[in-house]
Amino acid sequence: MNYFEKKKIKDILEDKIDNYKDVIVMGWVRTKRVSKNIAFIEINDGSTLKNLQLVILSPDEHPLAEINRGASIKVKGYLDKVEGREQDVEMKAEEIEIIGEAPEDFILQKKRHSFEFLREIAHLRARTNTFGVVNRFRSKMSYAVHEYFYNKDFKYIHTPIITSGDAEGAGEVFKVTTLDFDNLPLTDAGQIDYNQDFFAEETGLTVSGQLEAELLATALGDVYTFGPTFRAENSNTSRHASEFWMIEPEMAFCNLEEMMTLMEDFIKNLFKFAVEEAEEEMDFFNKWIDEGRRDMIKNIIESDFGRVTYTEAIEILENSDHDFEFPVKWGIDLQSEHERYLTEKHFQKPIMVYNYPKEIKAFYMRQNDDRKTVAAVDCLVPGVGEIIGGSQREERYEELKNRMEELNMDLEKYEWFLDIRKYGSVPHSGFGLGFERLLMYLSGMQNIRDVISFPRTPGSAKF
Amino acid sequence: MNYFEKKKIKDILEDKIDNYKDVIVMGWVRTKRVSKNIAFIEINDGSTLKNLQLVILSPDEHPLAEINRGASIKVKGYLDKVEGREQDVEMKAEEIEIIGEAPEDFILQKKRHSFEFLREIAHLRARTNTFGVVNRFRSKMSYAVHEYFYNKDFKYIHTPIITSGDAEGAGEVFKVTTLDFDNLPLTDAGQIDYNQDFFAEETGLTVSGQLEAELLATALGDVYTFGPTFRAENSNTSRHASEFWMIEPEMAFCNLEEMMTLMEDFIKNLFKFAVEEAEEEMDFFNKWIDEGRRDMIKNIIESDFGRVTYTEAIEILENSDHDFEFPVKWGIDLQSEHERYLTEKHFQKPIMVYNYPKEIKAFYMRQNDDRKTVAAVDCLVPGVGEIIGGSQREERYEELKNRMEELNMDLEKYEWFLDIRKYGSVPHSGFGLGFERLLMYLSGMQNIRDVISFPRTPGSAKF
Repeated sequence: MNYFEKKKIKDILEDKIDNYKDVIVMGWVRTKRVSKNIAFIEINDGSTLKNLQLVILSPDEHPLAEINRGASIKVKGYLDKVEGREQDVEMKAEEIEIIGEAPEDFILQKKRHSFEFLREIAHLRARTNTFGVVNRFRSKMSYAVHEYFYNKDFKYIHTPIITSGDAEGAGEVFKVTTLDFDNLPLTDAGQIDYNQDFFAEETGLTVSGQLEAELLATALGDVYTFGPTFRAENSNTSRHASEFWMIEPEMAFCNLEEMMTLMEDFIKNLFKFAVEEAEEEMDFFNKWIDEGRRDMIKNIIESDFGRVTYTEAIEILENSDHDFEFPVKWGIDLQSEHERYLTEKHFQKPIMVYNYPKEIKAFYMRQNDDRKTVAAVDCLVPGVGEIIGGSQREERYEELKNRMEELNMDLEKYEWFLDIRKYGSVPHSGFGLGFERLLMYLSGMQNIRDVISFPRTPGSAKF
Repeated sequence: MNYFEKKKIKDILEDKIDNYKDVIVMGWVRTKRVSKNIAFIEINDGSTLKNLQLVILSPDEHPLAEINRGASIKVKGYLDKVEGREQDVEMKAEEIEIIGEAPEDFILQKKRHSFEFLREIAHLRARTNTFGVVNRFRSKMSYAVHEYFYNKDFKYIHTPIITSGDAEGAGEVFKVTTLDFDNLPLTDAGQIDYNQDFFAEETGLTVSGQLEAELLATALGDVYTFGPTFRAENSNTSRHASEFWMIEPEMAFCNLEEMMTLMEDFIKNLFKFAVEEAEEEMDFFNKWIDEGRRDMIKNIIESDFGRVTYTEAIEILENSDHDFEFPVKWGIDLQSEHERYLTEKHFQKPIMVYNYPKEIKAFYMRQNDDRKTVAAVDCLVPGVGEIIGGSQREERYEELKNRMEELNMDLEKYEWFLDIRKYGSVPHSGFGLGFERLLMYLSGMQNIRDVISFPRTPGSAKF
């Protein structure tokens, strides 16, 4: 038998294969019902949520007793269309071979397991309906990202994971080293001698590919990253993971306003892809995870995103009757409750809040003429608040240097970052989207641990 | 001016924009020639290798004196087709504005810089012809990978970067930690207390996503990874980097032979994509990096890959008149000189060598009935030798466990890996392709440092 002759259940159910055709199907048993003269087995091969029903007309001739839920089998037979049923193809099985047995007490029995329990067996959970769907959805949405940018002629770049930058303000960094902890080399002054480490200096895991993306945008034009990033923060919440994937486009010759237009276009396109190209998965989420999720997504696709300055947003919040836990005044970082009030109650659609106080934003953001705010933007959506953040970058050498000095940053470490402001500097802008946050938003899944196959969180790096 | 009204030089030169149309173009100056009544400037915006020629009819009216090579400018004007010239569109410039100046002694002058020198200024080298091409090529080939697998309904999976596995046999591992080196916690027995580290155990950077890919393949069917992997090996060669991107497909219900068919199909499709969809880049490589490279690639696309067992390959080598540096006998790991003799001299086409001695291959490979060899395959191509390696995996619980015990591996650490052999185990196979090796092969670039934007090698993690 040839790999290429084997048929996937997805193709069978999508009617890509003729009726009565002889086929070979392989998959894992989901259910089995045996009576005297007929037996039914449903199998799944991971290609789709749906199972293929096998009809066995001579149960005695097959090793049905040994086939438990979870076992893998190989089946020869032919397809038979059944009119008037939702899933209108079944397979008349002629030969059944057990490939891999499963014990009668296989851990994934036919019942609802809690997501908490399934996290403990992350090596098996992709065999459940929910996590099969989540994995296929993640794959499709990854492709959506690449397709969007490829068609817009953005260059996909791979920024380094191991970095010697100190990632001012972006969060705690994991150290990367090959030093022997039992025998750490010391300098004459008694300090750890990083000269003897693998890279001859202190290195860590990247918290963002943005700075490197800026270097490449100011050579290639439009670029984007899509890769893993890291935070060594000891926060055990449902929205934080220590390792997650980020999408970071960076555009040369692009100001804040132009970037906001792109941001809106990007979100709408991804959401459209989900609704149109991941129909099965969105059906599932809408039915089992969060009813109404699809309508919410469709509403966003059809909205014109609002645009409002931070200062205006603060005024709206101050003038509202709403009782906020965190008091509102100009200068604060917007809390989730503020963001959600703005997008859900006041505007009732996605909005972009821009021109934030410079004190609460990163050093590389472009200072506005008021000297108080920077050209930063957060895109807020109903149900969650901020989903994407971005900014126009400070492209003026003197302004950037001054700001870095104000913040006592080590200019030498950033020489290359300053350099590109010296040689044909250009206005440029970019934004960052946490891929898992996107998946959670589209699916309604509530815990980031359930949209990554093997999540890394404080105290947990299993599998 | 709107970002979306700005025209990319690529679109202009590909005739996507009408003649005489008013356009705005922004880019970096590559050359400038000024005479009394006319001036010419060539600019590049990173969208293509080619420059756009600007014709300035009243040189006195523009700030030409201040425009040095490397400066960024914004130009308004209209397009004008010029018959009978290779590049038949030029732009009559009406307004020129300097966006970012460059000093007269800008480091990237119009001359050939050595690749060694350009590595020192990796933050600027993407502005050269060669590295612009390399970056765009890398982006296109990345897309080729995703497109190939998406169309074949493989699921793209993100396997973890931080891992607690010990990656038996795959190479040295970088440690990942948040422990304070100046104050390492110790257990009562005086050992480093990893319980107090971030993940409560020793963790490192992944050397391969394969083991996790196996978990997901045995749930989802066909999957692939495409992400960064790491080796903490102190090898300063032109072919090794400490951080590189790997492509690792893993297929359930797939044996060695079927996998070889997929491998051949995969390589041919990627190579075809390069020749057809990255024409500009392949032209450049063929002209400036390695004449004949394109023909070599085309030959491979048209070849039927040979298949030969390791044992047969050893016989061929033993019977040849060739004088090898490393002596040939059954049991040795094939050296580059052996591989190249086989593919270049003997077969004169790509070949797959399979069924290697188990002692020189990894623990997870499926043992053949001869008990001496495993179902491993290396694909060898002219000019380099091995380009892809893969294997059918040991899916039999007892066989795998015995092999791991023979090798004194810590079974407890691999409980999850053994588990999937207990519950509906299936034959499955996969291979791994180093993405940079692929790029080097297609382009003819000789140093891995020149196909990664910001390479990480021993002693070097700058940018």
